[in-house]
Amino acid sequence: MDKKMIYGRVAALRERMAKEGIDAVVMTSTDDHASEYVHDHYKVTEFFSGCTSDNVTLVIYPETAHLWTDGRYFISAAGELEGTGIELMKMGEKGVPTAHEHLKMNFPARGVLAMDRTCITHKDACGLTCGLEAVVMDIDPAEGIWTDRPARPKSRPFILDETVTGEGAESKLSRIRQKMKAAGARFHFVSDLAEIAWTLNIRGDDVFCSPLVLSFLLIGNESCSLFMAEEAVTEELAAYLKGIGVEIHPYDEAFSFLKENTAGYPVLIDGACTADAYFAAVEENGRAVDEESPIELMKAAKNPIEIEHIKDFYLRDSAALCKFLFWLDKNVGEIEIDEISAAEKLDSLRAEVPGFLELSFPTISAYGANAAMAHYAPQPGACASLSKRGFYLVDSGGQYMGATTDVTRTAVCGELTEEEKKAFTLVAAGHFNLMYAKFRKGSTGKVLDAFARGPLWAEGVDYNHGTGHGIGYILNVHEGPQSVRWHSAPYTDGVEFLPGMIVSDEPGLYVEGKYGIRTESILLARDDFENEYGKFMAFDCLTFAPVDRRALDLRYLSDRDVARIDAYHAEVFEKVAPFLNEEEKQWLYEMTRPLS
Amino acid sequence: MDKKMIYGRVAALRERMAKEGIDAVVMTSTDDHASEYVHDHYKVTEFFSGCTSDNVTLVIYPETAHLWTDGRYFISAAGELEGTGIELMKMGEKGVPTAHEHLKMNFPARGVLAMDRTCITHKDACGLTCGLEAVVMDIDPAEGIWTDRPARPKSRPFILDETVTGEGAESKLSRIRQKMKAAGARFHFVSDLAEIAWTLNIRGDDVFCSPLVLSFLLIGNESCSLFMAEEAVTEELAAYLKGIGVEIHPYDEAFSFLKENTAGYPVLIDGACTADAYFAAVEENGRAVDEESPIELMKAAKNPIEIEHIKDFYLRDSAALCKFLFWLDKNVGEIEIDEISAAEKLDSLRAEVPGFLELSFPTISAYGANAAMAHYAPQPGACASLSKRGFYLVDSGGQYMGATTDVTRTAVCGELTEEEKKAFTLVAAGHFNLMYAKFRKGSTGKVLDAFARGPLWAEGVDYNHGTGHGIGYILNVHEGPQSVRWHSAPYTDGVEFLPGMIVSDEPGLYVEGKYGIRTESILLARDDFENEYGKFMAFDCLTFAPVDRRALDLRYLSDRDVARIDAYHAEVFEKVAPFLNEEEKQWLYEMTRPLS
Repeated sequence: MDKKMIYGRVAALRERMAKEGIDAVVMTSTDDHASEYVHDHYKVTEFFSGCTSDNVTLVIYPETAHLWTDGRYFISAAGELEGTGIELMKMGEKGVPTAHEHLKMNFPARGVLAMDRTCITHKDACGLTCGLEAVVMDIDPAEGIWTDRPARPKSRPFILDETVTGEGAESKLSRIRQKMKAAGARFHFVSDLAEIAWTLNIRGDDVFCSPLVLSFLLIGNESCSLFMAEEAVTEELAAYLKGIGVEIHPYDEAFSFLKENTAGYPVLIDGACTADAYFAAVEENGRAVDEESPIELMKAAKNPIEIEHIKDFYLRDSAALCKFLFWLDKNVGEIEIDEISAAEKLDSLRAEVPGFLELSFPTISAYGANAAMAHYAPQPGACASLSKRGFYLVDSGGQYMGATTDVTRTAVCGELTEEEKKAFTLVAAGHFNLMYAKFRKGSTGKVLDAFARGPLWAEGVDYNHGTGHGIGYILNVHEGPQSVRWHSAPYTDGVEFLPGMIVSDEPGLYVEGKYGIRTESILLARDDFENEYGKFMAFDCLTFAPVDRRALDLRYLSDRDVARIDAYHAEVFEKVAPFLNEEEKQWLYEMTRPLS
Repeated sequence: MDKKMIYGRVAALRERMAKEGIDAVVMTSTDDHASEYVHDHYKVTEFFSGCTSDNVTLVIYPETAHLWTDGRYFISAAGELEGTGIELMKMGEKGVPTAHEHLKMNFPARGVLAMDRTCITHKDACGLTCGLEAVVMDIDPAEGIWTDRPARPKSRPFILDETVTGEGAESKLSRIRQKMKAAGARFHFVSDLAEIAWTLNIRGDDVFCSPLVLSFLLIGNESCSLFMAEEAVTEELAAYLKGIGVEIHPYDEAFSFLKENTAGYPVLIDGACTADAYFAAVEENGRAVDEESPIELMKAAKNPIEIEHIKDFYLRDSAALCKFLFWLDKNVGEIEIDEISAAEKLDSLRAEVPGFLELSFPTISAYGANAAMAHYAPQPGACASLSKRGFYLVDSGGQYMGATTDVTRTAVCGELTEEEKKAFTLVAAGHFNLMYAKFRKGSTGKVLDAFARGPLWAEGVDYNHGTGHGIGYILNVHEGPQSVRWHSAPYTDGVEFLPGMIVSDEPGLYVEGKYGIRTESILLARDDFENEYGKFMAFDCLTFAPVDRRALDLRYLSDRDVARIDAYHAEVFEKVAPFLNEEEKQWLYEMTRPLS
């Protein structure tokens, strides 16, 4: 990205600000659907800043500009913003004001604050403007400036059979209507793309790496209206939707339809993940019942059919990763491998798995110090070559016709320092401590976090990201509401683990300029047993790939840790070997030998 | 307690119910101040049921009666209620409705529900009556029935010097007024006895085992009114209170004074721990700002002077416990010792510590299977004699002129089964795992709970009580707001550990009919270090008494566990030995030898 182009774009926006009397423009990196990953059409913050992070708030004043992002992106954002004149604001760091605090300090009283109210959630809009004496102006900041802006996507959706979903859309709609009734709502307005896809058992290709259909859904007591690009509706889809009682309307009519048809009624609408403009449309004539969508929890607990497919695809996905790790181990230092070619190798192995649709996110392929950036993405022409020393971290996943996968392994390329080995071992100890945890039914992710962090905290180190997130089913690779984290997060703190929920287990350790380590497997929560003390739950691991034993320093592991690693590795060999050729099998045998 | 007397009392109440058209009477085991431990005057639920638990809700219908209490008291309450015709309702057990749910199912529509609104908190009153079509009648159920009811207490308060409290009352009042201002309140009505005693630096003897003064406090922007028994006011106290700007009023005038003097103003009042009647008094003419009292958090984080005294008294208190454990070890099986005489021995050793005021709670002295009742209190004539096998559990503490202590040890009396050793070892592992935990600043008790429970959960066992509670300073032995627990608890979930907070670390394991084990030490939270990962905190242990090494089975301990126990025991010997005679010292030396 040419830094001069950024200057020009910001300058053009400031020209408009001056003309229209705007004192500040606020932009967030989301779309009309509060998506974490968005189609290129919506990358307005990237257009104006060059910053590719997916959790950005950008505030442009007449003289200065400031961009907030979180700890995952501090290093990459610093590089991207260098020379643009936009100041990086590190979220959550000591002494760094939030965007709201910054506005309170710098925004003139009774000034004009411009934002695109369709691209900011109601909750964020309220939070940003709370206590500001601001006149809010609804504008599209890119209008007239982003001349080659990509059009909104309109891929053709496909329908998932009940043998894949385990539950028909009519059954799902009926369960949702029961929850609407309990919440005292006549309608439920759904803007979250994954919730819509899950409810209707349809998938599309409108968002990079997420098989989603750009749409809104308005569920009524007896009606159901889907708003999507009409050009994308096939005959098959039209017939299917008609069959399940869903009417199709053009995407652009959602706003006016919502305003007119819900007037006078209570509408269940989640202010935390609905765009401010749509929330306002409901509030204008109806009554917003501002609660979490019941769909989120429904889709988080996978049903038995989904679990069956998930187990099957996770194993095949694990086998592809093992083949890659074998290839890497044989070839590193022997042939030219850089971060991009390594990622391409893994991506191609994954693409060979029958049922593969696309990647679930761009492969994070990071060698040596680059891996200290938790969400590093190698750039062509500026990526590192692998050699026989240190670690190589690869975080990757696929979309399959029966699973969304996510896995991270940190592979040994050659010689390691004592410090690197210790760091790797602590991460492994935390990873297996959570994987093998037993816990009381009713526990939340906050209760479980210390299992993963305990071994790191004991040595005075930590990782500045959550330990675990939920994962969709042929949907987003990050989904809620469950999570494993020690930090308080109002929307997820109270979420108890339910059988069928899947969650990542991904402790790490990052030392800027030196190395980055992360070990991530995906766990399936299940009921374990009940006795006089209560009900206990446990996890089944869905991911089967070796945790590089050559980097494990037994001095930092207890006997129990060692027994757990050995048990896991025995299972890895047993399950994955049938998918490998003789040479790969021999390698896996070595990599999964008992430590003890 | 004669069960027939209970019958008679309940019958008398039912006669009144019939006469006055009352469909149900609700009583809770608290006083006008939402106290956990109450003066005998307020033991109305005990009077009507014989149940001595301190967390009771009793509902009396014309035909049936039901008593709710929590897991600590299931076993003792079952015994106490047997033959009384009152049904035990186990709080939190599967299929057991709450008192509110029970009323919703059994209370007649538009019926009359009687309760003493001064002896139930506003929050509990709302919770109980929510959704019931009930006419609430404010009565004292004991009136006319409890003829020999003890009078309200009126002990003479004493004043604590700033060398003991570390902060004068005027400074405390000024800090409270700042918080009132931030909350937009003109007055703060305080009914919690510990908060009043802390604020004014006075103590009394109105509640068994808690040096409190029965009183209310109304803090205004510029005024401050204390309501207490006038007969108890000494000249010295009157002069002291005048000096700090506090007016004295009779205890009984609090209600009318509150109603008249706060009319039209916003009053900070905590509905969760203020009696419903007083809350209503504020709401009648003023506006209730229903928030947690700011005093709770202020008194929870001990100041440096308090910490100095606490460290000193905890050490002396530990030495008294060590002397007792030595005496027990020498004499068990040799002379006649029963649960009561053992408690008397410990109580007398504690009383010898200079600065001792009284016990902080009745000593829990439980041998063998009796210890499975987590809050067992031995009864004269019905208590167990100790012999040379199994465990003896003692949970005890004192009030000193510079600390409130609390400690539990489970001592080996003789032969143990493998199961008993394993259980003891798991409890010890959890206990030391929390004691030596390092954790990120900002962690709550929910994040830390898995440190203590992890080793037990891993073996499929647990204890049905919290891991840790705060402790007052010459105040209640239980205080908030911090706690260590995995269960969600709305008022404490978000409370982060602050330097200076003290908290108990008391995992246990109880097998009904067999044994009960608990190991409890008190921990002081402090800042530890800050590095590139963030700020870390740690605990200092305040309690120094051996954890009986004869019951530790090394097979269930990691090398790290063993190293921690050895380090702790080395410190116990070093600190406590100077307080012991030669024979005791020799014994302690043996008890604190390294395991490895």
